[in-house]
Amino acid sequence: PDPRFAKRMQERLDSLAKPKGSLGRLEEMAVRLAGITASTQPEMVHKRVVVFCGDHGVTEEGVSAYPSEVTGWMMETFARGQAAINVLARQAGAEVKVVDVGSKADRVPKGVVNVRVRPGTANMARGPAMSRAEAEQALAVGWKQAETAKEQGVQLLAAGEMGIGNTTAAAAVAAVLTQRDATTLTGMGTGLGDQGVRRKAAVILQSLRINQPDSSDPMDVLAKVGGLEIAAMAGFMLGAAFYRIPVVIDGLISSVAALAAVHMAPQVREILFASHLSVEPAHGIVLEKLGLTPLLDAEMRLGEGSGAVLAFPLMDAALRLSQEMALLSELGIHSQS
Amino acid sequence: PDPRFAKRMQERLDSLAKPKGSLGRLEEMAVRLAGITASTQPEMVHKRVVVFCGDHGVTEEGVSAYPSEVTGWMMETFARGQAAINVLARQAGAEVKVVDVGSKADRVPKGVVNVRVRPGTANMARGPAMSRAEAEQALAVGWKQAETAKEQGVQLLAAGEMGIGNTTAAAAVAAVLTQRDATTLTGMGTGLGDQGVRRKAAVILQSLRINQPDSSDPMDVLAKVGGLEIAAMAGFMLGAAFYRIPVVIDGLISSVAALAAVHMAPQVREILFASHLSVEPAHGIVLEKLGLTPLLDAEMRLGEGSGAVLAFPLMDAALRLSQEMALLSELGIHSQS
Repeated sequence: PDPRFAKRMQERLDSLAKPKGSLGRLEEMAVRLAGITASTQPEMVHKRVVVFCGDHGVTEEGVSAYPSEVTGWMMETFARGQAAINVLARQAGAEVKVVDVGSKADRVPKGVVNVRVRPGTANMARGPAMSRAEAEQALAVGWKQAETAKEQGVQLLAAGEMGIGNTTAAAAVAAVLTQRDATTLTGMGTGLGDQGVRRKAAVILQSLRINQPDSSDPMDVLAKVGGLEIAAMAGFMLGAAFYRIPVVIDGLISSVAALAAVHMAPQVREILFASHLSVEPAHGIVLEKLGLTPLLDAEMRLGEGSGAVLAFPLMDAALRLSQEMALLSELGIHSQS
Repeated sequence: PDPRFAKRMQERLDSLAKPKGSLGRLEEMAVRLAGITASTQPEMVHKRVVVFCGDHGVTEEGVSAYPSEVTGWMMETFARGQAAINVLARQAGAEVKVVDVGSKADRVPKGVVNVRVRPGTANMARGPAMSRAEAEQALAVGWKQAETAKEQGVQLLAAGEMGIGNTTAAAAVAAVLTQRDATTLTGMGTGLGDQGVRRKAAVILQSLRINQPDSSDPMDVLAKVGGLEIAAMAGFMLGAAFYRIPVVIDGLISSVAALAAVHMAPQVREILFASHLSVEPAHGIVLEKLGLTPLLDAEMRLGEGSGAVLAFPLMDAALRLSQEMALLSELGIHSQS
C-alpha cells in the first residue's frame, strides 16, 4: 500500500464534521483502502465474491454432519442463484463467481467455472491429502481468479468456499501454522455434536501425526492436511495482493487460507480485511495471528463467503462518509481540548 | 410479539438450504422481526432514523471537548444532508428526521422539527437538569414521533441523538439504573483526555449526590440527571413498542434511553435491537442489562444514530435470506447427525 494516500485519507477524515477518530474502525478501513488503491477516492463499485469448491477425502472418517454429495448440490444451488451467498451478494451489489477446484460432483453445473485439479482430496488421516504439485496447481487456480478479476475491473473481492469436511482440514492447517493444540481448534463445523467434535479432533491429530507437515513450508502444509479450495483461496489472496485488490475474508476456512498466504508472502496481509467472527474456536486465533479484527460478531458458521459479503456495505459506508460529509471548516467547529 | 409467527419463521429458516442455525444471529433477528410484526414475511422497506437533539447545562462544568454551539451547527448540517448520519442513511435507504426537543440553538433550521421543551437542561451539578413535567413533555415528544412513524407506514426505526454533554448525562442515568459506580461508567465522549474524563466522573458523582435520583422511578432519574433528548428517545421507544415497530438502538445514549424505557415498561425490550458496541465503557454494561448483544464492534463513538443505521443492511439481509433461499427439500439434503 502507498502510505501517502493512506495519510491523505486520514487527513481528510480528520477534517470532517465529527470528532476525530469517532468513526472508529470505519476510518481505519477507509485509510487502508486508500493505501491499497493509491487513491484518496477509492471506488469499490465492482464487487465480487469468488466461491471455491472442493471435497475432502477425510469425510470417510465421519468428521462432518453432511455427506460429500452436498458440495455438488450446493454448486447447483449457487448456479441457480438460490444459496445464502447469492441472496447476500444481490443485496450487497456484488457478483458471485463459483469455481470448482476440486469437488467430487458428477457434473459441474453450467455457470460454475470447471478447473478441477482432482475430484476431492485423499483421506488425510491415511496419508497426504494431495501432492505438492496438485496443491500448487490449486494455488494457481486461485491466482488466476485474482488476475481475471483485475482484467474485468473488479475493485473489491471476497473469498468464499464450499466443501464438506473443510473445517477439519482448516483446523489441521491452523494447528500447524499457529503451533496450537489441534483439540482446542476443533469446532462443530456444519453441526456436529460433542461426540462428533471429539472424533473430529482425534482425526485431525492422527492426520498431523501421519503426515508430519512442515510448519516452515506452507505449501507442504496445504498439500498434506489442507484442501483444494483452501490452496486456491491462498493463491487468490496472493494474486489479489499482486494486483492490489482488497480481499475480505470470511470464516475459519478463508482465514486459514489467508494465514497460509501470509506465511508465503507477508505483504498479503496488507490487502486483507476481516469481516466476522464465526463460532469455530480456531477462527479468533487465526485472525489474531493475521493481526486482523472482525467487525461483525453474528455467530455465523455457514461459509460460502456469507460473512465477508455482509461487510461490503460497511466498506461502502466508510468510503461514502469520507467523500460526502461536510468539512469542519465549513462549520467553524473547533474542539476545546 | 406474537410467538406463533416467530415459531413459523424459525421453521422456515430451518427448512432452508443451509445447516440449521448456521446464520447465527441473523436468524435470531428474522425470528424476532416476525414476532414483532406478526408476519412470516416482515417488510422493512420504509426505514427511518430519528435524531433527537438537546443541550446540557452541565457543559458549564467543562465535561465536553466541544462547546454547546456545536449542537446547533450539527442540526444545520443534518438539515443540509451532510452529516455522517445523512450519508449512512442514504446508503441504507433510510430517511433522516431531526427533532429539536431541547437545543439551545438560536434558530431551528428548516427541515428540523421544532418541538423544543426548553433550551437545554439546567446544570445537573447544581440541581435537577429539568422538572418532572418537562421530562414528561420530552417523553411525549418522542412518543409522538413513534406515532407519526406508524401513521406514515414506517416499518423500521433507529434512535439517534445529538447533544453536546450527553454522554455525561447518559453515564449518570446509567449509574443509577444499573447501580454501578459512576467512575467506571465515565468515558471520553467526543474526545476528552484522561484528565477530562476524571473531571467528568467527579461532575457525575456530584450530580448524583446533589440530586439523589430515585432508582425505582425512571422519570425522576431522567428529570434530575438525564436530558431532553434522552427522555424523548425513551418515549420514542415506548411508543414504538405500543405500535409494534422495531427500533434499532445506537450507542451509549440511546441505550440508556432504552434502559429507562424498559424500566417503565419491560415489554419495550421486545422491539429493541442492539447494533454496535461503542467505546464508551458504560455501553456494554447497559446493553447487558437490556439483554441485548451488539452485532458490530467498530469502536465508534459518534452518535447521531450512525451505528444503528449500519445495522439496517444486516436486518435486510436476515429477511431476504428467509425469503429468497432454496429449501433443503428441493435439494434432497439431509444431515447425518
